[in-house]
Amino acid sequence: MHKTLIALAILSTTAAAHADEGMWMPQQLPQVANQLKAAGLALDPAALTKLTEFPMGAIVSLGGCSASFVSPQGLVATNHHCVYGSVAHNSTPERDLLANGFLAKTLGEELPAAPGSRIFVTKAVTDVSQQVITPAVARLNGKARLDAIEKNTKTIQAECEKDAGHRCTVSSFYGGLEFYLIKQLEIRDVRLVHAPPAGVGKFGGDTDNWMWPRHTGDYGFYRAYVSKDGKAADFSKDNVPYVPQHFLKLAKEGSKEGDFVMVLGYPGRTNRHRLPSEVAYTFDWSYPAFVKSSAESLAIIAETTKDNKDTALKYASQVAGINNYYKNRQGMLDSYAGSDMLARKTAEHEALKQWISADAARKKAYGADIATVEKLIAERDAETKRDYFLSSSKPRLLNTARMLYRLANENAKPDTERKSGYQVRDVPRIKASVAALVRNYDEKVDKALVLNSLAKYAAQPVAQRNAAFDKVMGIKDGMDKAGLQAALDKIYAGSKLGDAATRTAWIDKKPADFKASDDSFIQAAVALYGPDLREEAKEEELAGKLQESYANYMKAKIAYMNSKGQAVYPDANSTLRVTFGQIAGRQPGSDGTDWKAFTTVAGVAAKATGTGEFNAPKAQLDAIKAKDFGKYVDPALKSVPVAYLATLDITGGNSGSAALNSKGEWIGLAFDGTLDSIISDWDFNKAMTRSIQVDLRYILWNMKHVDHADNLLKEMNAE
Amino acid sequence: MHKTLIALAILSTTAAAHADEGMWMPQQLPQVANQLKAAGLALDPAALTKLTEFPMGAIVSLGGCSASFVSPQGLVATNHHCVYGSVAHNSTPERDLLANGFLAKTLGEELPAAPGSRIFVTKAVTDVSQQVITPAVARLNGKARLDAIEKNTKTIQAECEKDAGHRCTVSSFYGGLEFYLIKQLEIRDVRLVHAPPAGVGKFGGDTDNWMWPRHTGDYGFYRAYVSKDGKAADFSKDNVPYVPQHFLKLAKEGSKEGDFVMVLGYPGRTNRHRLPSEVAYTFDWSYPAFVKSSAESLAIIAETTKDNKDTALKYASQVAGINNYYKNRQGMLDSYAGSDMLARKTAEHEALKQWISADAARKKAYGADIATVEKLIAERDAETKRDYFLSSSKPRLLNTARMLYRLANENAKPDTERKSGYQVRDVPRIKASVAALVRNYDEKVDKALVLNSLAKYAAQPVAQRNAAFDKVMGIKDGMDKAGLQAALDKIYAGSKLGDAATRTAWIDKKPADFKASDDSFIQAAVALYGPDLREEAKEEELAGKLQESYANYMKAKIAYMNSKGQAVYPDANSTLRVTFGQIAGRQPGSDGTDWKAFTTVAGVAAKATGTGEFNAPKAQLDAIKAKDFGKYVDPALKSVPVAYLATLDITGGNSGSAALNSKGEWIGLAFDGTLDSIISDWDFNKAMTRSIQVDLRYILWNMKHVDHADNLLKEMNAE
Repeated sequence: MHKTLIALAILSTTAAAHADEGMWMPQQLPQVANQLKAAGLALDPAALTKLTEFPMGAIVSLGGCSASFVSPQGLVATNHHCVYGSVAHNSTPERDLLANGFLAKTLGEELPAAPGSRIFVTKAVTDVSQQVITPAVARLNGKARLDAIEKNTKTIQAECEKDAGHRCTVSSFYGGLEFYLIKQLEIRDVRLVHAPPAGVGKFGGDTDNWMWPRHTGDYGFYRAYVSKDGKAADFSKDNVPYVPQHFLKLAKEGSKEGDFVMVLGYPGRTNRHRLPSEVAYTFDWSYPAFVKSSAESLAIIAETTKDNKDTALKYASQVAGINNYYKNRQGMLDSYAGSDMLARKTAEHEALKQWISADAARKKAYGADIATVEKLIAERDAETKRDYFLSSSKPRLLNTARMLYRLANENAKPDTERKSGYQVRDVPRIKASVAALVRNYDEKVDKALVLNSLAKYAAQPVAQRNAAFDKVMGIKDGMDKAGLQAALDKIYAGSKLGDAATRTAWIDKKPADFKASDDSFIQAAVALYGPDLREEAKEEELAGKLQESYANYMKAKIAYMNSKGQAVYPDANSTLRVTFGQIAGRQPGSDGTDWKAFTTVAGVAAKATGTGEFNAPKAQLDAIKAKDFGKYVDPALKSVPVAYLATLDITGGNSGSAALNSKGEWIGLAFDGTLDSIISDWDFNKAMTRSIQVDLRYILWNMKHVDHADNLLKEMNAE
Repeated sequence: MHKTLIALAILSTTAAAHADEGMWMPQQLPQVANQLKAAGLALDPAALTKLTEFPMGAIVSLGGCSASFVSPQGLVATNHHCVYGSVAHNSTPERDLLANGFLAKTLGEELPAAPGSRIFVTKAVTDVSQQVITPAVARLNGKARLDAIEKNTKTIQAECEKDAGHRCTVSSFYGGLEFYLIKQLEIRDVRLVHAPPAGVGKFGGDTDNWMWPRHTGDYGFYRAYVSKDGKAADFSKDNVPYVPQHFLKLAKEGSKEGDFVMVLGYPGRTNRHRLPSEVAYTFDWSYPAFVKSSAESLAIIAETTKDNKDTALKYASQVAGINNYYKNRQGMLDSYAGSDMLARKTAEHEALKQWISADAARKKAYGADIATVEKLIAERDAETKRDYFLSSSKPRLLNTARMLYRLANENAKPDTERKSGYQVRDVPRIKASVAALVRNYDEKVDKALVLNSLAKYAAQPVAQRNAAFDKVMGIKDGMDKAGLQAALDKIYAGSKLGDAATRTAWIDKKPADFKASDDSFIQAAVALYGPDLREEAKEEELAGKLQESYANYMKAKIAYMNSKGQAVYPDANSTLRVTFGQIAGRQPGSDGTDWKAFTTVAGVAAKATGTGEFNAPKAQLDAIKAKDFGKYVDPALKSVPVAYLATLDITGGNSGSAALNSKGEWIGLAFDGTLDSIISDWDFNKAMTRSIQVDLRYILWNMKHVDHADNLLKEMNAE
């Protein structure tokens, strides 16, 4: 499942949906109270609307993954693949934590998570729509409109962030119709507490990813640390575990098929109400292009790291990420090839247009924007295609140099006027990413990846290329691969940014320092700055226009759906959501099978090969063989359950989300969907969509009977 | 599934079974005529008893695999894994037929199969029990008894083989109570006609081996050639395709769940009525030891061939074979660990003993042998354990030298007095195996395998070792690995048997030539000859005693079962058998699933990764994507079926067996069982046992729509 869902642009947060799908904003839950009760919820739905009460107060974001507090000492449970980067960060060929797992027996043994790791605790969600789109903003167009929205957004965020240690984000819902300010405590001292060996946490590897039957123990633990006075703080030995307002209680009874289940977390992005032209562009061009270049990247990384375990470890996280998206996109393409999705979306869009045309007032309100949005999207897609290879042809250190030079320029302005992403609040994240390069960058690998892309970029006609980029890279029309290789060798050799200290020192320098530098990547960044800004201004002009017409298109669509009596929830946008359903198998399953709701440890033993992706630890296999199940045995299955399917509506970003039973007790962690149902990101299919959760009993059984994590079990009150 | 089931010793062919299991001798089918009719057979069961009529006349053996004539020009259909050795034999790094597949568009393009390849057409089966165990033999014991049985057997076989081009084998049924002479036309000119790419024929590789859902296109084609006058003959360009008396007709309609199905073939070996002590020995010691050493061998071959594609190809067939048995044995061990098999077998054995004790006549007839057989088995097992590492510590060329020297010594005797396996009839096979070494032997790999075993052998106390072997190999007590390595280096360096011409020349030499040779392996073979013969005589004394008491134990057991009204069929012994049942899914399937009866090409596309074990060819994937299914689409599945499950009772040796419908029409090829049901070789479980067949429609669809084997489709009348 998606591992790094970063902050999404305004344009990705459109849409609305039917009431029988559901990534509900907590405040919407009273609207579906009857369905919640009917599904079996024993709690009062109103209780779920209160973000700082139980259980919502226990739910946190890792920025890309979801997680939960599970003890009064700030212990955080999430997926193994969500702590994977931190495990890799702390691994060396001599001490391979990925392979062997990690368990801190005391607080003192806990390890700093990867640089930039954060735990976000949502404190408040406030409707700020009127402050973002003021009457004055509503009259603006294009870049001016976008700039005004950004200015208002930054002002609101800055005001909110005066409360030190907090991160405030204005998020767009319903395609810019509504804006909410999300205020989160930003915990910066995050430590790795426990991860099982890869043979458990990544059991099945890429072979089983997105698959059922599934036997992955996809769990891991962080701990949140704050200063002694309870404030968010950078890492310090003097920091103490954070005491959350609420934490999840472990279920007293095991789950079974048919049980109510809900998942609370931060789904990243869905696209269920996209325009037909966006569907066609994505599935006919964008995803196929991505799949092709991902396959190439994986092959290049494999080839260039095969003889160096240290380098391979550096790229392990990136490889996992590419593999994950690769399989996701390919899975969606496979589903799309066999579906009538485009035809159906087209018919729905035609119906919307007819509904608009049928009424003069509606025609006046929405008619023009429906036409405009199509034109603007076509324009944007053409530019994306043109620049596809350009973006992956930039050496990583060139991008670092560009980021640093942009930062130096933005630093010269008052904070509120700086470009979003380069404000004072963003500097720690920039510093962390510059520092993390030591751990995830290798020149040989990077150069091979860039060369592969650059050869395709350079083969484009000159009119489709970027003149400024060609100039700084020394690319000439008709240059062959040897020529490109030589150009790369030259520019890489001319830079000292590969050195961590040199690189870090640039963070505090002035634009004049950059202009005076003879470092090749710094020089290139300076040369690209002007042209890039001009390109950005053009993109913002288009984006501003698009925001205006797209929001109005969405307004029309919502009105149309409401006119048909259909309730609407916004598409996922990395904000806190609730989805509920049942634990349920599926008929049909994959080709040749039906799917049961649960897998068991018997399947771990059956799949175990002693090597590679199915390398279950010997201690675990011994415990399975000896039926050393303790209290974690399921009475019906007569074994320890490993994972279960549920009819939940989740997507990337939900990884690590807590699954709760009807009483709001913890029963597992969502970590995946099944390959033939992930197309639900675009086109929800109620009969086929299943989320995959690791069963809490499997987590606890492994911790107790295999890894002997008694300290954590005691802390979670699991004994 | 087992790839190389070699001729089985008398002691492996014991046992009887319940009427609801079933590997029936064709002549027994009238006994189960009612069941056959009830299951849906439309043919007269009596028709199946006639070996030279349709359909039995079309069923052939490849010696380890089963197969069928499918055209009037001697075209033979079997499994891909049964022609695998021939595909590997014809493969080179430049022309990788394994990877790319092979299709002869004309007779002239067909390639000689691997040396030693045979097609056996059964012509007659005759009861020779009275000629083998004559009244005089019945009075003998120990080695004398075994020698007399062997002498009678050889005499019967030799008389039969006076009909040139035939191979005659006396096979033991019911543990030596009955003996049948099987007369088979031995076709020696076998040619490879067609094998799909490994991405089809071995799709899923070792990962999917023994698994469901399955998507392996496990089919391939040979052609039988004979001399112009229709006699079996060595390869010659003048040979012509053999015209079989009968060949299978392709089914006109596709199969569906619940349909009657029967499989005709040559199952190798089952052990359903073994003594409890044999069960314990096998599952507590023998299989675990095999699994451990197989894993080591696989790792050693992988390591020593990783940088040499040519060497890797040489060992490809052996690796496939080891992997196959490895997974088989491990699967049985897993099932055994979760079963009450030993307790149940022990209880049954106690019941038998009580039944014997309850009657004076029975006690007199069987009582003593029941006790004796247990004692003798314990003795045999102890010797096997002692010599376990010895047998795998012999360099392959040393074994070749031993075989050649034994041949030279046996050649000095009249043919009927020669040891079985070294008679005139055996010489072509010996020659072929000596020649085949070029294709499947590499000194570096062999030495690494031997060293691994030798280190364990040498660590045994001297009393557990073989003094003669120690002497020729230069092994001293307490020798470390470096010392053993040096000893191996010396003996390997001293031999020229690695040279094909040198090796082949030894086939026709006299014992004196061997004694005069300074070749290290030849010298060692000469030195080991006397001690080996003495060891062999001891083993034969034990085997003779065991045969006598074991046969009588089996006689008692059959009488006991008959007394309970249970019909009896003999355990599999590589002779022609019939099993029948239904096409049927299974509940439960593997952990987390139920199994449907059919898989489809949709599953091929879903599993395809473009590399490794799941490397489906692009042309095939394109055809699947385009739904280019032609007439091979199943109306209910709306896709091309790939494989199906059935309640058939098969085992190794059945690989390649024709599956026929109720009309006796061809509907597929059996190629595997499922991992959790292969324990049925020892302990039949009616609810769990499923055989896996590749659907004929998948074979034909691939041949038509992907590989364009129109010539063969026309020949099989498939158009």
